[in-house]
Amino acid sequence: MDQFLKVVSPEDAVAIVSDQLPKVSSEFVSTQSSLGRVLFDDVVTNIQLPEFVRSSMDGFSVKASNTFGATEDLPAYLEVIGEIGMGHQPVPSISPGQAVIAYTGGMLADGADAVVMIEHTSMTSDGLLQIFRPVAEGQNTIRPGEDFGLGDIVGANGDVITTGTLGALLALGIDKVKVFKQLTVGVISSGDELVPSDATTKLGQTRDINVHTIAAQIQKLGMAYAKFPLVDDNLESLKSVGTEALGRCDAVLYTSGSSLSSRDLTYQVIQSLGEPGVLAHGISVKPGKPTVLGVTSGKPVIGLPGNPVSALTVFDFVVDPILRHISGRKTLPPPSVTAILQNDLPSERGRTDFVRVSLQETENSIKAVPVWGKSNSISVFSETVGYIQIPSDQSGLYLGTKVEVRLDE
Amino acid sequence: MDQFLKVVSPEDAVAIVSDQLPKVSSEFVSTQSSLGRVLFDDVVTNIQLPEFVRSSMDGFSVKASNTFGATEDLPAYLEVIGEIGMGHQPVPSISPGQAVIAYTGGMLADGADAVVMIEHTSMTSDGLLQIFRPVAEGQNTIRPGEDFGLGDIVGANGDVITTGTLGALLALGIDKVKVFKQLTVGVISSGDELVPSDATTKLGQTRDINVHTIAAQIQKLGMAYAKFPLVDDNLESLKSVGTEALGRCDAVLYTSGSSLSSRDLTYQVIQSLGEPGVLAHGISVKPGKPTVLGVTSGKPVIGLPGNPVSALTVFDFVVDPILRHISGRKTLPPPSVTAILQNDLPSERGRTDFVRVSLQETENSIKAVPVWGKSNSISVFSETVGYIQIPSDQSGLYLGTKVEVRLDE
Repeated sequence: MDQFLKVVSPEDAVAIVSDQLPKVSSEFVSTQSSLGRVLFDDVVTNIQLPEFVRSSMDGFSVKASNTFGATEDLPAYLEVIGEIGMGHQPVPSISPGQAVIAYTGGMLADGADAVVMIEHTSMTSDGLLQIFRPVAEGQNTIRPGEDFGLGDIVGANGDVITTGTLGALLALGIDKVKVFKQLTVGVISSGDELVPSDATTKLGQTRDINVHTIAAQIQKLGMAYAKFPLVDDNLESLKSVGTEALGRCDAVLYTSGSSLSSRDLTYQVIQSLGEPGVLAHGISVKPGKPTVLGVTSGKPVIGLPGNPVSALTVFDFVVDPILRHISGRKTLPPPSVTAILQNDLPSERGRTDFVRVSLQETENSIKAVPVWGKSNSISVFSETVGYIQIPSDQSGLYLGTKVEVRLDE
Repeated sequence: MDQFLKVVSPEDAVAIVSDQLPKVSSEFVSTQSSLGRVLFDDVVTNIQLPEFVRSSMDGFSVKASNTFGATEDLPAYLEVIGEIGMGHQPVPSISPGQAVIAYTGGMLADGADAVVMIEHTSMTSDGLLQIFRPVAEGQNTIRPGEDFGLGDIVGANGDVITTGTLGALLALGIDKVKVFKQLTVGVISSGDELVPSDATTKLGQTRDINVHTIAAQIQKLGMAYAKFPLVDDNLESLKSVGTEALGRCDAVLYTSGSSLSSRDLTYQVIQSLGEPGVLAHGISVKPGKPTVLGVTSGKPVIGLPGNPVSALTVFDFVVDPILRHISGRKTLPPPSVTAILQNDLPSERGRTDFVRVSLQETENSIKAVPVWGKSNSISVFSETVGYIQIPSDQSGLYLGTKVEVRLDE
């Protein structure tokens, strides 16, 4: 084990933990309420859509050949023998020289192969239909399979179900869908200086916000969270809550107090919960170095730093991809925008820096404005919109550099 | 009224309805579960954060002047008279020549004005603290108000509460927050050709997906939806369900059947529900022209086209901004990406076109690929990621044009 117990890069941190972890199992849910869930299987159509030839216009279903050569001066004349209303209907047949009233989305007469738009017709005083423009075979109709053919792929394993997917599945008559189970992530906050966020503070005490901000990030991922009551910095208490959380949750996150001893306790408790225990101790990032990464009983157990900005940053770059991996969803690039860096940003080689920035739109470009001077403050998060990443092989970024800003989702 | 009953631009459609509508009222919610809600008032701090001088390092709180001139060769020597643990503690005072153990996030001794990092110290064999580097006043400390000062603005009326806002509010001890009430939007689907999406279809019938795709879009806006059972194309039934929906919901959406007569019924029912009734009949857009916009009892009542793609497009460009307006939230530009158009896109002057596109990333640019040939198919939505807009003063867009793709959220 010991060879792992070193400071690792954020990318390695994600890989070391994810490699040990299976994806969650599957369940069937009603397609109607499946928005945001993750497809477990590829979904392939077993019917065509539409299922019947549909008119795409209000007008008359006809044999196209009966309209050939029709003009304003020399219209074609047809006999209207009926109407096909919307829905399940007896469908009349037409013989040459006949037409049937058709509606948008409705059926054509048996024997009809095209629809003449009502705008290109009129009725004579003795009840004959005049057609002023010819239609080609298939014109103004939607043929079976035009939307989805047999064997088309509607969605693939790992796809998040969007409004479009949900609509397609329902249109195809797929009213139950196999998805990855929704993750529940436990969040345990500890620290002798902390009090619940709605308690009155005494001098020296700080309101615990991490349990709520981390839960908010979990909620935004479409996962469920379980918040546990604030724990004192005490190995036995931390272990007992951790064991309870492992019983109920698919992943467990500790956020420790800000002192060194509180952080050391997180290491000890994760090591004590079960094999394999701690896999990495420290990440070469700023902020967020004092992070502990472990796995117990096939579930990730991660100790986040106590500082609120550090905790959120590590969540976004390390915990988020691990949770997505377990949840079964495909990895997609996060939303980002290209901007011009407004200041020099010194860093250290060998360490990845994540710097919160706000954006300023100017006439020709977008400027990324780093937050200065209060990197430990939660105000940094409420005043900014995303992160710049300074790679570990660089000693900083210069003013004027084109940077990708990873936007908060 | 009649002067309004004409085809309007999508921008005017939003304005005509929004101008008649008040925002929803307010309520207090627990800050802990306020993610995504909309602030009703500006929130201004009435305490400083931090509330006390905090150490930002593990080490010793000292008088900075006692360390001036200290070097590796000529360290300063201080007497350690105690420790301040984390949390509420009696705070010792120091006299010149004294120091107290301090922890990250913890308090300083009375009389101390700086913290020496533990890394820059050692203990002599007879228990004296050696300090090898001087610290300046305030060094390694966070002063009260450094995160938030008195009177700082945490969030403003109309801001959506993000994870950062939620954390800031809780850190400041604001555990209840005044927000706009969450909207409930009623969705009523009608059409004689439609059957519920989980029913078996007979020839000529189509599964109703609009009620579910529109509800999904409402859900993504952080609003609640009420789905009503499918209604036949019958004025009395449509009116009765609409009256029920108006009683329970803050906005009502009809999606009609695809035939002309079904669309005309939507006009009649909205006109019949109450004053002022229909404000606009038809929007100069493609797809989505047969849209009916109305207001009844201070609530929007909108008739969407029956075609699933048209219904979603009108929802995204007309209904979405109206609902956001009522919900109290500030208007923000939707997420978008700049791309190069892959094909010519003909259009008509005087009409705004919304064309669904997929994106292809190439080495130097992103290409926007319009979907061809099946503009009426729900598959268009599941295979694409957003819209291109062809403005009404243009007769199309040429291949190679730089376009903004509005991404689905």
